Amino acid sequence: MNDSPRPPSLLDGLPPRPESGIYLDNNATTPVAPEVVARMVPLLSEHYGNPSSMHSFGARAGDEVARAREKVAALLGAAQPGEIVFTSGGSESDNFAIVGTLHAHPDKRHLVTTEVEHPAVLGLCRELQKRHGYDVTFLKVDGAGRLDPAQVATALRPETALVSVMMANNETGVLFDIEAIGRVVKQHGAVFHVDGVQAAGKLPLDLEHSPVDLFAVSGHKLHAAKGVGALYVRRGTKLRPLIVGGHQERGRRAGTENVAAIAGLGVACELAAANLAIEDVQVRRLRDRLEQGLLAAIPDCQANGDPSYRLPNTTNISFRYIEGEGILLLLDRVGVAASSGSACTSGSLEPSHVLRAMGLPFTLTHGSIRFSLSRYNTGAEIDYVLAVLPRIVERLRAITPFNEQRATF
Amino acid sequence: MNDSPRPPSLLDGLPPRPESGIYLDNNATTPVAPEVVARMVPLLSEHYGNPSSMHSFGARAGDEVARAREKVAALLGAAQPGEIVFTSGGSESDNFAIVGTLHAHPDKRHLVTTEVEHPAVLGLCRELQKRHGYDVTFLKVDGAGRLDPAQVATALRPETALVSVMMANNETGVLFDIEAIGRVVKQHGAVFHVDGVQAAGKLPLDLEHSPVDLFAVSGHKLHAAKGVGALYVRRGTKLRPLIVGGHQERGRRAGTENVAAIAGLGVACELAAANLAIEDVQVRRLRDRLEQGLLAAIPDCQANGDPSYRLPNTTNISFRYIEGEGILLLLDRVGVAASSGSACTSGSLEPSHVLRAMGLPFTLTHGSIRFSLSRYNTGAEIDYVLAVLPRIVERLRAITPFNEQRATF
Repeated sequence: MNDSPRPPSLLDGLPPRPESGIYLDNNATTPVAPEVVARMVPLLSEHYGNPSSMHSFGARAGDEVARAREKVAALLGAAQPGEIVFTSGGSESDNFAIVGTLHAHPDKRHLVTTEVEHPAVLGLCRELQKRHGYDVTFLKVDGAGRLDPAQVATALRPETALVSVMMANNETGVLFDIEAIGRVVKQHGAVFHVDGVQAAGKLPLDLEHSPVDLFAVSGHKLHAAKGVGALYVRRGTKLRPLIVGGHQERGRRAGTENVAAIAGLGVACELAAANLAIEDVQVRRLRDRLEQGLLAAIPDCQANGDPSYRLPNTTNISFRYIEGEGILLLLDRVGVAASSGSACTSGSLEPSHVLRAMGLPFTLTHGSIRFSLSRYNTGAEIDYVLAVLPRIVERLRAITPFNEQRATF
Repeated sequence: MNDSPRPPSLLDGLPPRPESGIYLDNNATTPVAPEVVARMVPLLSEHYGNPSSMHSFGARAGDEVARAREKVAALLGAAQPGEIVFTSGGSESDNFAIVGTLHAHPDKRHLVTTEVEHPAVLGLCRELQKRHGYDVTFLKVDGAGRLDPAQVATALRPETALVSVMMANNETGVLFDIEAIGRVVKQHGAVFHVDGVQAAGKLPLDLEHSPVDLFAVSGHKLHAAKGVGALYVRRGTKLRPLIVGGHQERGRRAGTENVAAIAGLGVACELAAANLAIEDVQVRRLRDRLEQGLLAAIPDCQANGDPSYRLPNTTNISFRYIEGEGILLLLDRVGVAASSGSACTSGSLEPSHVLRAMGLPFTLTHGSIRFSLSRYNTGAEIDYVLAVLPRIVERLRAITPFNEQRATF
């Protein structure tokens, strides 16, 4: 690292940088499982048929899609494979759920969501409000990121088409009580859409016996490829397509099926189902070790969000007096990938809308880092981060202008 | 084939079935080029970062997307890479172009298209007409599948938001005169969208110096993977996103970029650009040999669509007195993949909407087969089809109920 432009003193004496890198940004995207890649490659190179074609090339492709549909349905606990519609990813699934519901209920012009949703829901709801004349209620969360189902009840109106909330927050991992919220929504008769992008593959799901009507899934958040996702559509739910045209997905999503990626998503769902216990025990243990280790070693930091009711793989930690971006850049120099806020909102210098909605002060939102683990992480990787990060924070604090303000906080 | 339920006499004495199959359905989907697969695999398995992430994993992914954008722009003759927006495929690109234009011009409620468009345009326009109160003019074509630019001029109104026509027809290969049509549209001031899905990679393009504002591309039609496509958006064209949310694609298409497939699309476009002459000479020669050979060997058949002004890879031939499905099934038995109509409209027993719009009688639409070639086809494959297909047609005609009506046609 001699050719690096950094001040020479900052990282001296740190342990050697790991060769392959330590990836703790799994809520942004995950490594594709080797089993998924192995399933995808022959569907790209040899068995490339279009499932809509009448010949054998097409039939093989159609079989792959059908098998994948069963596996996705199994992971989600859907009543039947026909409730799964393949899409290009989580953002399309969320847009499809919301726009498709509104178009199916043209007389209902109100929707309910929360202030901490992913941009695919929040940005769309703002667009619907600003440009299409819809009325949107954005519900607040409490300081731990929780949503009170009673708030949902208060927001519902006769003209409410749907309620859209996330199951697990991408930035904090905090879980909403989908059962309780959904009971309120279904009593009222509105459609209940859940952004399940961060939940699928990390938590056991039983959608058939839940109040959920629509549930969005993203492949690349659970070790499948980017560019593929699914929307669970409970049988009988009225929904217009977002992408209109061909007969694919029984008229619910036009466009040639992304056969290789869909087959890979099937494999990823099968693997996720088999690894749910590992996710809940082993990944949780690593996450807890990381979180507790950092909180113990570094002064003036805190974990954000409800400590018990959250995803097993996620911790969001605020380091007072420094910028999250500084931490990320130095972590990257030593081969550790993490994030501030979500990848889908980064690129702006705005502090996290999720942490702001939770009422965190500026000093905590600006120094927040999300670590999101997967079953591919190891204890040795966590130990490395526990050795490295306290030094990084200490050194950044020593040079940060915030330091002067430290006494005033 | 002893366990086959077919009448034993039908295929006896045919040449042996080729092991790998003969794929003549490239307008439905294409084999992914080996160079494309080679680029994709490491981006799935090793370099899996999210381009929006701040760390090195993300930067590598972002670089791949940027390079691919340059290559797509080069194939299309775009003025700059920033005019390329990546999507999940041709259907999304077409929907994005049309819906995005209508949302950007909310006061204009009329659009113009043709009766022979792909379902991604035709189905969407019908949905807009039926459910969203838009006024749509569906222009007719002549017996050779051509569109008269004067018709477009007549259809334009002050409230026309856009004109959407295809460059090359997916079923017949017939080309529209995009330059002449576009001049009419741009004189009037409407947005000009061209479905270029079948044209990209098969014809030289120079969009910068054309009247085209929006141009849809599908990856899997030009030897890239399924699940990826692009929309060319001329700089300055007002367009709202179809998938709303994250900041990706400069706010024009939310959702994590399908990095591996996008990088593969870049490679495919580079290959297509390098192979345009092969497409025009070698593929055209094979197509012509196939077409002329079939027309010479088989009585009562005809090639559909303008014979000279069409794609070099496509021929659409009607065989009187028999059903296209029968031909396809027997071709499939001997390892040859072709299609009747388009893959995106198959599954229904409706005769081709394209051939009907050209005024072909029932007896010709029902017995029509599309052969669509690629640079991977060989002369030996064409010879095999020329040996096999006349026998298939002869035998089907011998057993078809149409045979009784033969004298009456």
